[in-house]
Amino acid sequence: MKIDNSPARGMRDILPGDVRKRTETLATIVDTYTKFGYQRIETPAVESIERLTAGSSGSENQKLIYQILKRGLDDEAGKSVNELVDLGLRFDLTVPLARYFANNQASLRMPFRALQAAPVWRAERPQKGRYRQFMQCDIDIIGEPSVLAEIELITATMQALNNLGITSAVVNVSDRRVLAAVAEQAEIDTAARASFFISLDKLDKIGWDGVREEFSKVGISQSGSEKAIEIVEQLSASPINEVATTISKLLPSVASEVVDALGLTLSTVESSGTIVNFDPSLVRGMGYYTGQVFEVRSDAYDSSLAGGGRYDDLLTASVGKQVPACGFSIGFERITELLGDKASKSGLAVLFDKDVDLATVMNIAEKYRSEGYDVSIVPQSGSAKAQIDRLVEWEFESFVYLQSGKTDSPEVKKL
Amino acid sequence: MKIDNSPARGMRDILPGDVRKRTETLATIVDTYTKFGYQRIETPAVESIERLTAGSSGSENQKLIYQILKRGLDDEAGKSVNELVDLGLRFDLTVPLARYFANNQASLRMPFRALQAAPVWRAERPQKGRYRQFMQCDIDIIGEPSVLAEIELITATMQALNNLGITSAVVNVSDRRVLAAVAEQAEIDTAARASFFISLDKLDKIGWDGVREEFSKVGISQSGSEKAIEIVEQLSASPINEVATTISKLLPSVASEVVDALGLTLSTVESSGTIVNFDPSLVRGMGYYTGQVFEVRSDAYDSSLAGGGRYDDLLTASVGKQVPACGFSIGFERITELLGDKASKSGLAVLFDKDVDLATVMNIAEKYRSEGYDVSIVPQSGSAKAQIDRLVEWEFESFVYLQSGKTDSPEVKKL
Repeated sequence: MKIDNSPARGMRDILPGDVRKRTETLATIVDTYTKFGYQRIETPAVESIERLTAGSSGSENQKLIYQILKRGLDDEAGKSVNELVDLGLRFDLTVPLARYFANNQASLRMPFRALQAAPVWRAERPQKGRYRQFMQCDIDIIGEPSVLAEIELITATMQALNNLGITSAVVNVSDRRVLAAVAEQAEIDTAARASFFISLDKLDKIGWDGVREEFSKVGISQSGSEKAIEIVEQLSASPINEVATTISKLLPSVASEVVDALGLTLSTVESSGTIVNFDPSLVRGMGYYTGQVFEVRSDAYDSSLAGGGRYDDLLTASVGKQVPACGFSIGFERITELLGDKASKSGLAVLFDKDVDLATVMNIAEKYRSEGYDVSIVPQSGSAKAQIDRLVEWEFESFVYLQSGKTDSPEVKKL
Repeated sequence: MKIDNSPARGMRDILPGDVRKRTETLATIVDTYTKFGYQRIETPAVESIERLTAGSSGSENQKLIYQILKRGLDDEAGKSVNELVDLGLRFDLTVPLARYFANNQASLRMPFRALQAAPVWRAERPQKGRYRQFMQCDIDIIGEPSVLAEIELITATMQALNNLGITSAVVNVSDRRVLAAVAEQAEIDTAARASFFISLDKLDKIGWDGVREEFSKVGISQSGSEKAIEIVEQLSASPINEVATTISKLLPSVASEVVDALGLTLSTVESSGTIVNFDPSLVRGMGYYTGQVFEVRSDAYDSSLAGGGRYDDLLTASVGKQVPACGFSIGFERITELLGDKASKSGLAVLFDKDVDLATVMNIAEKYRSEGYDVSIVPQSGSAKAQIDRLVEWEFESFVYLQSGKTDSPEVKKL
């Protein structure tokens, strides 16, 4: 009978070479963010089910929670699932961050710069390249109301990507409050606005014709639809240094602080050498964003590499008062995939024949370690050729071969 | 109303300074093991509930599993808990390793040297210093039948502890097959042997009188008890280089390969400069050990720092045939606790007054980054004295203060 040793459905084992690549990628990201003063924190993998399902944040993700049974249940027939569950695996790092900040704020630097790189779990329909346990890599700045937060998050993230060798990235910026003004100006029904934003967000995938079709399906009038499209197109066409003026002209209801802050983000990011666009069709999925939102894209990879925004209301329920906050999340899994295979040869194999004394083998191995090698001791088995073929397959970088009576000055051979 | 922001019961948030210390400790351990050819692997946090509860391994731990509800359940009133659960959080890293090896063996170096450093979950009664989510740090060598495995695991682990600054550690070694022969020689009933081992393992805590009392409680005859104690004492008194001879004399039923292998482990470890003892009262809790077992202790810390042993039968069910295996686990949580507080000051704070231009602040911060500093931008608030007191409390190493019109050559001041 075949024994099933595959991991749990939708999850994966990570092979040594891949762990090494992921570790290197993460180290580059962490090093970059550390230079900007971000501090790594850790929270438990599980949170109370009440916290995970509270609020409207991530409502789609809430359906995907792995729920954990209360301990010590015996025969609970007749009880509903709700009564049986008290914990769940986290589906993102933002819900735990809000709790962590509220729980530990007295000990934290302010503004608090948090760096989290940790797994999250979502019971999504399994599909190629998407896993039910995956790494998220978030930076957040809590307690900073000004666009210092937005500008720094963008600058640091672009530098992290750059340090990973991703030099072709651009950042698209929008603002939820500008988007709301577009909907208002175009007289979109309040009830239809959520659908309006969801459809608009698909512009880069389905084009204006697709967006028009979606608008019509969700009951947005043709005049509203055309008006909104016209405003978005005019905003999009504006050069960076005129964005603020254009918004003030087309959308007089947007507060001047909002317009000025957006202008400041765009100009400061641009002056730091990053290619930045104002993209009024950029919405970003999460319902909790309250201000500027941003996304990093690269034509070379045809996908979004990072995304984030301001969420000034999310911490209110935990802290008991409003605390400004802004975050950016790097798509760690996508980026490791995009960076692809690097040379992964590593280590020196110390091959030895059975009749060589074990203490001698270990002493020789230790000598190579002291010279800087990572050394794996490998008992020789089968023919020398077959063994060396295996060393190549196993991606060793080099080897020495210890034979009885010939252990004095073995030669290190490249593989 | 007070909002409860504490983590899930028995779990903890880890503060930035502690994450940094843990990261440094782990890096030292990982670097050491990498020199010995160990490769980091990753498995999902969850395994199928069947796998977690299969076999007798870790039967105590099996009671502590966090069980995960099947997804997509609606109204399941009337079903038993067993029918509702399909996954669980892992309670150790050995069960996942067996599955991982069986699932991926075609891609792995042989002997396979695995390094795992990852959280596990156990719903234990909460108590001081013990958490329901905690890190385990294991090395295992799979596919090596000889004591090359034991010797290397011990040598590498002692070196890792040494690199952490723990220089006073000694390693105690025993062998399950020698222990079984002691029980046999003393004519302990087969039925009482599990209890015999459990009681004997407590010798270092409760002394011979305590052990005698326990032996009597579990129904071991006085003659059997005294005979066993006599053998253990004689074995313990033997100098390292005479252990093999003493075992052969006192316990003729122990196979000569077993005796020779134990002698080889003891002599090779000793010749590497490690203080090693033969301790026939050392059992180690896990039921799956089949041969040599070992434990690192330090009088300076009065506790076991690492433990392990050979488990040649554990992989049989997953792989479909016997595969020799041997592992060593460092008590990561205990060690980080023992290592205590190191100086944890870090980073340069760039303080700035509100009227200083944001782009200027960012340029100056970037200049210090390029000089090697980790830089946190901090808006000045309140009095300068209060702000600087906060920087001290936040464990910044140094700061500069940017005031309007005085940003040209700010002075870096130590804190």
